[in-house]
Amino acid sequence: MSNKPSLAVVGATGAVGTVMLSILSERADVWGEIRLIASARSAGKKLKCRGEELTVVALSPEAFDGIDVAMFDVPDEVSAEWAPIAASRGAVVVDNSGAFRMDADVPLVVPEVNPEMVKQRPRGIISNPNCTTLSMIVAMGALHKTYGLKELVVSSYQAASGAGQSGIDALRAQMKQVAGTDAGDATGDLRKHVTDLGPFPAPLALNVVPWAGSLKADGYSSEELKVRNESRKILGLANLKVSATCVRVPVITTHSLTVHAVFEKEPSRKAAQDILANAAGVKLVDDPENYKFPTPADVVGTDPTWVGRVRKSIDDPMALDLFVCGDNLRKGAALNTAQIAELLAVEFTK
Amino acid sequence: MSNKPSLAVVGATGAVGTVMLSILSERADVWGEIRLIASARSAGKKLKCRGEELTVVALSPEAFDGIDVAMFDVPDEVSAEWAPIAASRGAVVVDNSGAFRMDADVPLVVPEVNPEMVKQRPRGIISNPNCTTLSMIVAMGALHKTYGLKELVVSSYQAASGAGQSGIDALRAQMKQVAGTDAGDATGDLRKHVTDLGPFPAPLALNVVPWAGSLKADGYSSEELKVRNESRKILGLANLKVSATCVRVPVITTHSLTVHAVFEKEPSRKAAQDILANAAGVKLVDDPENYKFPTPADVVGTDPTWVGRVRKSIDDPMALDLFVCGDNLRKGAALNTAQIAELLAVEFTK
Repeated sequence: MSNKPSLAVVGATGAVGTVMLSILSERADVWGEIRLIASARSAGKKLKCRGEELTVVALSPEAFDGIDVAMFDVPDEVSAEWAPIAASRGAVVVDNSGAFRMDADVPLVVPEVNPEMVKQRPRGIISNPNCTTLSMIVAMGALHKTYGLKELVVSSYQAASGAGQSGIDALRAQMKQVAGTDAGDATGDLRKHVTDLGPFPAPLALNVVPWAGSLKADGYSSEELKVRNESRKILGLANLKVSATCVRVPVITTHSLTVHAVFEKEPSRKAAQDILANAAGVKLVDDPENYKFPTPADVVGTDPTWVGRVRKSIDDPMALDLFVCGDNLRKGAALNTAQIAELLAVEFTK
Repeated sequence: MSNKPSLAVVGATGAVGTVMLSILSERADVWGEIRLIASARSAGKKLKCRGEELTVVALSPEAFDGIDVAMFDVPDEVSAEWAPIAASRGAVVVDNSGAFRMDADVPLVVPEVNPEMVKQRPRGIISNPNCTTLSMIVAMGALHKTYGLKELVVSSYQAASGAGQSGIDALRAQMKQVAGTDAGDATGDLRKHVTDLGPFPAPLALNVVPWAGSLKADGYSSEELKVRNESRKILGLANLKVSATCVRVPVITTHSLTVHAVFEKEPSRKAAQDILANAAGVKLVDDPENYKFPTPADVVGTDPTWVGRVRKSIDDPMALDLFVCGDNLRKGAALNTAQIAELLAVEFTK
C-alpha cells in the first residue's frame, strides 16, 4: 500500500508515549504503518494517532515483525531487555531510556547537533539523551560550532513531569494543599500541609529540592552525571569540563537551566545572540528591557530550545552566561526521538 | 537608668522591620532604649518588642537624638536621604538598603566574615549586604579562609519575599488561582489563570522567572551585579571572578543558590564538609544517601546559612559545587543587621 517505512511506538500509553502520538500527528507524515506497543495489560486499548484509531498490541518479539523503526519510551530495564530483541527482529531502535546512552556502540543523537551519528549503530540501537541534557544541548551545540566549548557550569530548574505522571500528580495535589494557607512562612510547616511527597524527597509546592535521580559516587545524583557524560558524548568533546547541579522546582513541564559556558575563542554578546537567533531548533527571546526572556509558562508545549539572558561574563572574556528553557516532554523526550526516527525514515525510503 | 546603648529601628513597620522586632526580642538583650521610627503615617502605631509595647515615632532629625545605633530597613532613596542625617545627629547607622553598599567610605559587613570592618566607618554608616549575597557569603567566607577563593559561578533560586510584602501577596494570590486547575500544561495558559503579576514580570506560581531587580548595562540585572560587587567587597577580593544569574522561584521565603567555587588550593570534599560543619553561622546538612539536604521548607525561620550537596567538581580538582539556602528576611536582612548592631553595642558599652 505504501513504500513508506513502518514505525512501532513502544510504551505508547505512558507520559512520553502520549506526547509522542500527538507529535506524530502534527509532523510531516513520513510513516507507513504505525504500530502501538505496550505492556500486556494495556493491550487492546484504543488510541488515536494521525486521526486514526489504533489498537495497542502487547510487547512480544513478534510485535516487531515488519517494523523498520521502533521507538522505545519505557523504563531503563524494559529497554535493556527489549531493545536488543527488537533490533534482532530487524527494527532500528530509537531508545529514550538511559539503558544504552553511554554504550560505545550506541550513538547518542541530537539531530541539530550530530545527525551524522545515526549511521554508526553497530547494535541497531540509537539513544535519545536525557531530558535535562536535551533542554540545553541544541543551544550549546550552536555556540560550540563557532567558539569551541571548553567548560560548562550548569544549574537546573527541573519540572515535576521529569519524574513522570506521578511527579505531575504529586505537585498538583500539593498545590491544592498549600494554596490559601500560610505554608512556607515558618520552619517545617510545608511538611505539615503536604501529605504525599510523590516521587520527590521533600515537598515540591512552594519549595525547591536539590535532587533528581539516584545517588551515585561522591555525592553526585545520576541526573548530574547524565548532564556531564551525555554532553561530552553528543558534542564529541571527551575532555569537556562539566559541573552540574540539578534542582527540582514546582513547575509542571519545561526544564530551565542557567549555563555558564567557557569557550576557546572569545565570543561577543551580539554575535552569540545572532548565532542563537539563526540556529535550527533554537528560539532567542532576549530583550530584558521589555522583560522578554523565556519562562516555562510560555515554553511548555513548544518545540524549540528557548534562550534568553545572554550576557558576556564580566570577569571572563571567554565566557557567556545564559538562561535556557526546553519542554522536557517534547524536545526533552518525544520530539527528539521523533526527529531521530525521521532521519532513519529517509534511509528506509531511499 | 542603664548604661546600655540606645537603638533606633527605622522602618519598623515594614516586612524586614517586623522580622527585626522579633529578632530583637529573641536575642541576648544588649540594648537600653529601643526606639521605633517609621514614616509619619505610621507614627502613633503600637508594636511589641522585647515584651514591651512601643509607640512608633515619625522620622525626623530629632528622632535620632540620644540614639547610639540606628538600623535602617527602608527603600534606597529614604536611606540615601536620612542615614547621613542620623549620622550627623551622632548615631552610627547600620543600613540595609543598597544606597551605600559600594561607597568606598562605607564598610559592607558580615559579622562571621569581616567583623573588623565595622571600625572603618568614616561616614558613620555601615552597610548590610543584599539578601542574595548574604544567603551564600558566610559559607563562602569559611571556605575562602582555608582554600583561597578565585572564582564563583552562582545561580539563584530567589523567594518571592525578596520583592517585599507585595511579592508574597502576589505569589499567595497566584497559588489560589492555579491550584486545582491544569495550568502549566499548555503554552501560555498560566497567563490566563494569573490575573495579577504583582512585582514580577511573569507569573511566578508554577513558573520560574529569570529576572530580579532592574536592568543594568550589557543585559545584567541589578541583583546579579550586587552579588558580584558585594561578594568582592565583603571578601576583600578585588579581582574575584564572579558570574551570577538570578532567577525568581515560587517560594515564599528563603533564597537558595547553587555555587561553583574555584579555589587557589585544592579542596577535598571531606575537609570542606568539616570546615562548613564547624563554621559559625553555617549548618551543614549533607547526607544525600538519606535524602538530607537543605530546602527552603526547612530553612525558613532559621538563622544559619544551610549548606548541602557538597561535591568536588569532577573535571576541576580546584573546584567545589554546592547548594546553599538562607532565610532572606533573617540572615538575608534583619539578622545580619542586628548582628552588626551588636558589634557596635560592644563598643558603646566599653
